[in-house]
Amino acid sequence: MELEDAIRKRESVRDYEDKPVPEEKILKVLEAARLAPSASNRQEWKFIVVREAKKRRELSRAAAGQPQLAAAPVVIAAVATMPEHVMSCGIPAYAVDLAIAVDHMTLAAVDEGLGTCWIGAFSQEKAREILNVPGNFRVVTIMPLGFPKHTGRPKIRKSLDEIVCYETFKE
Amino acid sequence: MELEDAIRKRESVRDYEDKPVPEEKILKVLEAARLAPSASNRQEWKFIVVREAKKRRELSRAAAGQPQLAAAPVVIAAVATMPEHVMSCGIPAYAVDLAIAVDHMTLAAVDEGLGTCWIGAFSQEKAREILNVPGNFRVVTIMPLGFPKHTGRPKIRKSLDEIVCYETFKE
Repeated sequence: MELEDAIRKRESVRDYEDKPVPEEKILKVLEAARLAPSASNRQEWKFIVVREAKKRRELSRAAAGQPQLAAAPVVIAAVATMPEHVMSCGIPAYAVDLAIAVDHMTLAAVDEGLGTCWIGAFSQEKAREILNVPGNFRVVTIMPLGFPKHTGRPKIRKSLDEIVCYETFKE
Repeated sequence: MELEDAIRKRESVRDYEDKPVPEEKILKVLEAARLAPSASNRQEWKFIVVREAKKRRELSRAAAGQPQLAAAPVVIAAVATMPEHVMSCGIPAYAVDLAIAVDHMTLAAVDEGLGTCWIGAFSQEKAREILNVPGNFRVVTIMPLGFPKHTGRPKIRKSLDEIVCYETFKE
């Protein structure tokens, strides 16, 4: 699929078909994360592929009951394994690195006919516990992955005029 | 360009041709950021397109003299306009949102035959001052954009085995 189409078609999918995702498609999605850039090419990340229904239900409960985590056949948890590293500009590198890798996965998923949804509303402590993630690491998102029931929701976005300025900051 | 090719070809470009970037290509890159997802679709971001040579030299100095900021004909500064928002999992939403938008730009740049380089080593204070960014906002990156002098550096990445685990975290 053309990059432009993948960017245009990517949307937050909340309803998933009850249909397993072929291994080959999961690997393509993970490969997109693998190729992502990271600060100083550290690649301080792990991606946990969760398919067990019981574990997905637990993750759903850890995310205030968000049903898509239990309904999607796969959940990918993205874990930062060096969350203490801050770039000299003051931005935490782990959040940027993991966001880029997960973004690559969301686009690759579209390319595979799959849907995803970035989930940031969950208990860090409970997610760590369910997935056995050490306390010094950080779960950045738990992302459902599966075949979407519906697609094509219109994108509501600000115009370029509202978000772009030239040479200097303007409100 | 196919998404897969854009992901594969994206690299950190440090040497740029002394050749302006057509307006139309810059707009295509910005459009990819515009379409990016953000937490609760807040889109709390601004992208400052810097083409003035003097300003790019100042940004280069604010980034420990990194020459690509002065050499590339365009620098795009990505600014978070709501840096205080933290997701309930404890991850700062602004860093994730801006990383996704900038990642979209890096891929769209490849599609346009352009190169970029994520820069995180710069003085937040000086970058804000040069670009007139209010103190309560945050510059997440200042990214050079231009025609690359060389491409095709091999990607050095961990294997999937090193970064993927199943059902539960494993070192």
